Amino acid sequence: MPVGDAAMLDELKRAAAFRAVESVDNGMVVGLGSGSTAAFAIEALAARIATGLSVLGIPTSEASANLARRLGVPLTAFDIHRRIDITIDGADEAEPHSFHLIKGRGGALLREKIVAAASDRMIVVVDETKIVNRLGAGGFLPVEVVPFGWQATFARLAAVGCRPRLRTADGQPFLTDGGHFIADCGVAEIEDVVVLEAKLAHIPGVVDTGLFLGLASMLVVGRKSGVEVLER
Amino acid sequence: MPVGDAAMLDELKRAAAFRAVESVDNGMVVGLGSGSTAAFAIEALAARIATGLSVLGIPTSEASANLARRLGVPLTAFDIHRRIDITIDGADEAEPHSFHLIKGRGGALLREKIVAAASDRMIVVVDETKIVNRLGAGGFLPVEVVPFGWQATFARLAAVGCRPRLRTADGQPFLTDGGHFIADCGVAEIEDVVVLEAKLAHIPGVVDTGLFLGLASMLVVGRKSGVEVLER
Repeated sequence: MPVGDAAMLDELKRAAAFRAVESVDNGMVVGLGSGSTAAFAIEALAARIATGLSVLGIPTSEASANLARRLGVPLTAFDIHRRIDITIDGADEAEPHSFHLIKGRGGALLREKIVAAASDRMIVVVDETKIVNRLGAGGFLPVEVVPFGWQATFARLAAVGCRPRLRTADGQPFLTDGGHFIADCGVAEIEDVVVLEAKLAHIPGVVDTGLFLGLASMLVVGRKSGVEVLER
Repeated sequence: MPVGDAAMLDELKRAAAFRAVESVDNGMVVGLGSGSTAAFAIEALAARIATGLSVLGIPTSEASANLARRLGVPLTAFDIHRRIDITIDGADEAEPHSFHLIKGRGGALLREKIVAAASDRMIVVVDETKIVNRLGAGGFLPVEVVPFGWQATFARLAAVGCRPRLRTADGQPFLTDGGHFIADCGVAEIEDVVVLEAKLAHIPGVVDTGLFLGLASMLVVGRKSGVEVLER
């Protein structure tokens, strides 16, 4: 992607993130997603806190926790505040009709999903390139697996139609915050995401998948033509 | 339980374990379960190896690995032998009509399930007190969960009808070999184990459950009246 396009997408994400953060009210507990779009949301939240908003954040990764601390977003622990009012996060793909998502490119899918599932509302911020007609359009579904017996688990992923590749970093298996591996699964457009999710969840060794079904309640889409807000 | 009963149950388990190990043939890769009954199977396997049987074992816990080494059962790594001929393991409850199981009292359920799922056959050895008409009769289903946000995960377990209690050891949360927690869930007899397993697997933060459905191919039951063998 040309540099100009990346900068333009960043502007779309930023505009959408600032719009999403308008939904946050005083006194809320806010789940903080991970990744580049979620970082804009943390920045937007910090801007509102600077002008008087009082909230507590629950981060989904060390990176988000560090950014929040640096920008002055006060944090709380998930074991104190189990119920979260709003989580704001990005996505790798989003279906506008179903609000189903694919997440996990950044490797924080498990914590992101646990926090999203514990939230009254999940607001998803994306630029328009992430909107797809059908999940899988990007060809890519991350699945988090336990290291023990991962080769056998990968064989079972392949048997349900995914083509797993072990994510690596510096020549070693990439380790999630939870100490698991990521299978980057090659997929085509997914016929029935609910069926696929059930098949994947049933495989021993699969901790969770990048399919976020029925979790998002609002999509905030940064488009060149402006910010579009979709509510379920 | 009176000491005499425990010793008697051990004899039933031992007899069943020795019968189960008769199914092992020369050259096989054998999954080694965990727990007291699986220990008898490792002992029985060692006895056959002492008289000439040549097999390789894949252990499901450090305890089983240590016992196998001590008794002279040669081990191999799961990443070399991904396909296992037979796994021999115990169970906390077994349904004789469906071959469905509950496992996990020993805390090794995840590795046991990964190994069982990678096996051509799973032989389950139990004494007669483990045979139930319907799973859940013992009132108890272990579920392995990630530590992050475990309180929120427990709330979701409760919402599907389980009553989770965090397993502890020496006053601290019990940690599995994979670094996860165990929710010891209070249950009644389970109406539909397939539905419950799907609900539990769908909860973010649940790594796996003690429900072993469709994995066992043979039940070897130590009864006071003798060893009973059930095949699917």
